Amino acid sequence: MSRRSRRNPVWEVRASTLARNTRNLIREIIENLDVQPNPDKQLIALSVGDPTTFGNLNPPDQVLQAVRESIEWHTSRGYGPAKGHIEARQAVAEYSAHQGHVTAEDVVLCSGCSHAIELAVSVLADSGQNVLVPRPGFMIYKTLAEGLGIDIKYYNLLSDQQWRVDLDDLENQIDDDTAAIIVINPSNPCGSVYSREHLQDILEVASRNRLPIIADEIYEHFVFSDHEFISMSALSKDVPILTCSGLTKRFLVPGWRMGWIVIHDRNDIFGKEVRKGLNNLATRILGPSTLIQRALPTILKNTPQSFFDEVVLFIENQAKLAYKELVLAPGLRPIMPQGAMYMMIEIKTNKFPEFKNELQFVERLMSEQSVFCLPGQCFEFPNYMRIVLTVPEEILREACRRIIIFCQEHVVSREKILEIDENVVVSSEAEIIRKKSLTTVT
Amino acid sequence: MSRRSRRNPVWEVRASTLARNTRNLIREIIENLDVQPNPDKQLIALSVGDPTTFGNLNPPDQVLQAVRESIEWHTSRGYGPAKGHIEARQAVAEYSAHQGHVTAEDVVLCSGCSHAIELAVSVLADSGQNVLVPRPGFMIYKTLAEGLGIDIKYYNLLSDQQWRVDLDDLENQIDDDTAAIIVINPSNPCGSVYSREHLQDILEVASRNRLPIIADEIYEHFVFSDHEFISMSALSKDVPILTCSGLTKRFLVPGWRMGWIVIHDRNDIFGKEVRKGLNNLATRILGPSTLIQRALPTILKNTPQSFFDEVVLFIENQAKLAYKELVLAPGLRPIMPQGAMYMMIEIKTNKFPEFKNELQFVERLMSEQSVFCLPGQCFEFPNYMRIVLTVPEEILREACRRIIIFCQEHVVSREKILEIDENVVVSSEAEIIRKKSLTTVT
Repeated sequence: MSRRSRRNPVWEVRASTLARNTRNLIREIIENLDVQPNPDKQLIALSVGDPTTFGNLNPPDQVLQAVRESIEWHTSRGYGPAKGHIEARQAVAEYSAHQGHVTAEDVVLCSGCSHAIELAVSVLADSGQNVLVPRPGFMIYKTLAEGLGIDIKYYNLLSDQQWRVDLDDLENQIDDDTAAIIVINPSNPCGSVYSREHLQDILEVASRNRLPIIADEIYEHFVFSDHEFISMSALSKDVPILTCSGLTKRFLVPGWRMGWIVIHDRNDIFGKEVRKGLNNLATRILGPSTLIQRALPTILKNTPQSFFDEVVLFIENQAKLAYKELVLAPGLRPIMPQGAMYMMIEIKTNKFPEFKNELQFVERLMSEQSVFCLPGQCFEFPNYMRIVLTVPEEILREACRRIIIFCQEHVVSREKILEIDENVVVSSEAEIIRKKSLTTVT
Repeated sequence: MSRRSRRNPVWEVRASTLARNTRNLIREIIENLDVQPNPDKQLIALSVGDPTTFGNLNPPDQVLQAVRESIEWHTSRGYGPAKGHIEARQAVAEYSAHQGHVTAEDVVLCSGCSHAIELAVSVLADSGQNVLVPRPGFMIYKTLAEGLGIDIKYYNLLSDQQWRVDLDDLENQIDDDTAAIIVINPSNPCGSVYSREHLQDILEVASRNRLPIIADEIYEHFVFSDHEFISMSALSKDVPILTCSGLTKRFLVPGWRMGWIVIHDRNDIFGKEVRKGLNNLATRILGPSTLIQRALPTILKNTPQSFFDEVVLFIENQAKLAYKELVLAPGLRPIMPQGAMYMMIEIKTNKFPEFKNELQFVERLMSEQSVFCLPGQCFEFPNYMRIVLTVPEEILREACRRIIIFCQEHVVSREKILEIDENVVVSSEAEIIRKKSLTTVT
């Protein structure tokens, strides 16, 4: 054929705007770091939010047994409905009774919690609108929203008040283009757990401004002694809420990609449109693996409470251990978490003048001590770093020991004793926890 | 607090444009049909493209055994890289050797083939651009593209030439906003399998117009006797190709959601940008279940060829059976497929004047005979219907018997014999197959 092309005489294929704007902030920051471990010391990665990495935390046999049985059923191999099989959605509805009245019709199964978050954000917000995200906060929101042209606006969490929401700042961020408020509770990366009263204050802001909430509760029930997990939706009188959760963290199977959205809409504000929109979006990839869907009712019913209790107790003890150790590191201020599986640590950069910022701090901590922590910039919160608490106890202890040595070697002040005293006075609440931890953890 | 809201005085929450525009055409058409089966006859659904529905087709034990073993490994529970575990991608690369030179770096694991298609379309096309899709064709493309503001333009397949691409029409559809050509081979819904020469003709159009191809090859290797499956990418000298495939159909596990993209880019036209874009997009939901990823190398290596051969032979025999039967149905023209698992049947609507269109034909076929076929409008191709060939033999036989009765009762001409003669002369190729089928299928 001799027809002439009406198009480019040379090949040029670009990636789409969506593809170019879907950026993984954490990976970009890490790729720009010079993070070579000290070859003489075993690497300890306190950076990865995957509780299964070290092999010390495993799902209970009831969870595995449910999947073993599912494999043998021919119904676990075919396509499911886009929102998920009714039996699986019914099981999630019963499991989510603490969130309020939930039926199978309120549940959309997703391919992991990040897919749940993707659907929740993209059903509520259009290109040009914005969603409000806590700072520090988990960056998947930025990755998911900005690709679609949805802007992220940050509201501050108060580091000296156990990461409570700065309610004035939250309300000040709201504008005519705001489509939703995202609340992460318990929090990644902070490990904070909000009280009933504080959740009600947040709901009041949302209600007054007629804004739906996306409640990221993937760490639901992950709370330490003397704290209580309350689901946002259980308190809402009018604010419509999309609650995102899944098996990921609580059942220690993040790789299985089983998440869900629960729709809370007491006053029929979402109405048919948002429900239908979620269903439409779910048809794009046709739901999570039916192998896990078929196992889900048994997983949710048969997993014993003792399993959950043991995991949370382990993490609480790790938090106490890390706190007790790191409070002794000159120039650092660890903040005792109340739940989830992380601890935020302030780096008093004025005590480390040789480092320009916390990025250089974590780079050098890596190159000298082979301990890798995520810098606060990964959470839009400089001068902090986040550590993961799910590593085995001996490894966490060794990591803390090396962090203390590193701080001792680099802090300017030689007045270590005073330094420590200053660190100890974090907040009265943390102080009490610290004193308790000193007696209970040995 | 008494602060006044700056926003709406009343609640109003809309679904996003993406959510509203992500429409499932097939479901919408079916929802608008009056499809009540005859209560006196058992329903036979020939509509669902899921080979596992009837329980007669099951994956081989090697596939199940690979997952049984994967469950026990703690590495099958944690997060994988966004593109998938290297071992799984390496296994896909080796499995895809028929496509040309493929390395693990060229493979992106996806949550099923529809996710692969979503990534392929959304990495290449921007809102306002268009992609070219065959008509008749599988409507997931429309669902995925239009939500993102990407237009669909159709190019015709020739029903009287075994569904070859109308190359002139294909080239005429190309404009300055065209981002990619989608080729489905073997085809859903047509069951056509393109020859080497025809694939080369399509590549020539793409090359001349500097357009990348998305090759939907989820039915790869699903070809009947005397036909050969050739992967588009194996023939391309310059055209960059994203090939979409997965376990779905060939391994009879569509619900497991394990698909992949293989990047073919011999002349480095996609370059880093499209590869990076795919990686970015993959981070949105973090890949398919690692439970299946870990099993993938064993699945791809251990599944015996005899299993594939038996499944394809079964479907080929079903195609022959359906063809042999339906060629006797007055007013219908079945088109013998060459592969995949479907058959398209022309409904000569002028022979059925009581039905306004093929939608009414399938409605009445359902209400009288309890046989449900997908109307051609589901594939943008009126006056046809699609049947699925994977149902058990006795059910297919009964369905054909009822379809023939239905046609006999409603066709206007009483000259059944002449009617049949006219039907038999479909094409010389189909005729040969038909004659063979008459001797081999009894």
